Amino acid sequence: MEKLQTIERLSLNQITTERWNLREAVEGCARAEIPWIALWRHKIAETGLAESKRLVRDAGLRISSICRGGMFPASTAAERERRLDDNRRAVDEAAELGAEVLVLVCGPAPDNDIASARNWVAEGIEQLVPYARASGVKLAVEPLHPMYAAERSVVVTMAEANALAAPYKPDEVGIIVDVFHVWWDPDLYQQITRASGRILGFHVSDWIVPTPDLLMGRGMMGDGVIELRRIRKAVEAAGYEGPIEVEIFNQTIWDQPGDEVLSLMKQRYLEHV
Amino acid sequence: MEKLQTIERLSLNQITTERWNLREAVEGCARAEIPWIALWRHKIAETGLAESKRLVRDAGLRISSICRGGMFPASTAAERERRLDDNRRAVDEAAELGAEVLVLVCGPAPDNDIASARNWVAEGIEQLVPYARASGVKLAVEPLHPMYAAERSVVVTMAEANALAAPYKPDEVGIIVDVFHVWWDPDLYQQITRASGRILGFHVSDWIVPTPDLLMGRGMMGDGVIELRRIRKAVEAAGYEGPIEVEIFNQTIWDQPGDEVLSLMKQRYLEHV
Repeated sequence: MEKLQTIERLSLNQITTERWNLREAVEGCARAEIPWIALWRHKIAETGLAESKRLVRDAGLRISSICRGGMFPASTAAERERRLDDNRRAVDEAAELGAEVLVLVCGPAPDNDIASARNWVAEGIEQLVPYARASGVKLAVEPLHPMYAAERSVVVTMAEANALAAPYKPDEVGIIVDVFHVWWDPDLYQQITRASGRILGFHVSDWIVPTPDLLMGRGMMGDGVIELRRIRKAVEAAGYEGPIEVEIFNQTIWDQPGDEVLSLMKQRYLEHV
Repeated sequence: MEKLQTIERLSLNQITTERWNLREAVEGCARAEIPWIALWRHKIAETGLAESKRLVRDAGLRISSICRGGMFPASTAAERERRLDDNRRAVDEAAELGAEVLVLVCGPAPDNDIASARNWVAEGIEQLVPYARASGVKLAVEPLHPMYAAERSVVVTMAEANALAAPYKPDEVGIIVDVFHVWWDPDLYQQITRASGRILGFHVSDWIVPTPDLLMGRGMMGDGVIELRRIRKAVEAAGYEGPIEVEIFNQTIWDQPGDEVLSLMKQRYLEHV
């Protein structure tokens, strides 16, 4: 299978350079000629929304996604309403920044009842869709790895994400395919096909062996066992030709100088994705 | 849902008292009046097969399962044949001990090709079935948590385990339901129903939040978020009334005196399973 020939689709998910603030990440992308960036809300808040917008625009970057909305399940109706308000603010920020895609990390159960939590996710999305549609922001459900089911997201398979998205138009609710979260799934390629027309983002990293840590154990592309190119081709066959984000939680990588990380990331992207 | 009223189905999977050798584990169960035990092959090897058999018999214990066969995928035909030989020895040991069930931990891929590894698992089981049948030993496919896909088992869902077992009679190839490995699965209850008549074991522990470690992070029943009783009732509705193994990899529990672990285990079993 053919390699990517250019970095025109490459996006820095700014968590990969966690030590950089938003200005540093934007300037780093500009220096490295990486055309896309994905912004995290806590980094936007730190820099300020207007200043973040100005920095991105002045650098000529495009925003692949905003991380993140979601976290819908909660024990009380009042708390769920508060979560929904926060999601509306996330939509507002995405719209103001001109970002088309808001990533949804759906949230864990507040107790042992995972089935109810899954229903609250579906309800939360249903309530958020009209607001997002009116703002021109697409909601992208990102299934997380099952090892995060108790702490980050009860939505842990592509099949669940597809089912959550199905009631809506593809430009209202779609799916993020992150290789780290879904590579193990025996149903992966079938579910990518099922997501045709609804894939709103493709995230790459790698699964290191042995795996050093649940949260901070992601690897740079090529350092692990994920069939990156095969998955990328499947995602393209399902109609996705948009930006490809590199999103890595890894203390060793976070401790490296950002410019070196971006340089390595470009090389590995062309070699392995 | 009703609690269990007695410990007549309770089994100590001896990894839960990892510091005990086989004799100590058997004697511990006898003292605690736990009627079942699950043995690990490295512990059997350490004590010797004949002596292990004598110890279990003299204590009046029954063996719920032998851990473990499997590990089928390998790059070369010669190595796969060697793995199959080792599985035949595992069947021999189970038969000699009078254990009905050999647990299969299917093994990781030798490279990045998870699909081929899954085929090798199916082939390995196919080749092992006649030998196990002739020895009166049932093969039990245990799907592991997806976080072990790269290091322990490419079989990571109940759906895969059911598909692997389907070509065989229920007394030839069945399934182990271990709550730690499958609790997150949105398809769990449907797949338990599908496994009706084929469930050969039920393993309990808990999923601690926050999760301290990939391998050593399992908790005692009641210390985590798994809906133990709901899953137990589903497994019973699917026809399983056999032993319930407590299998916990956790350094803190391993460091406690074995008798205290067994005492706590009995209490939590009656309270939470």
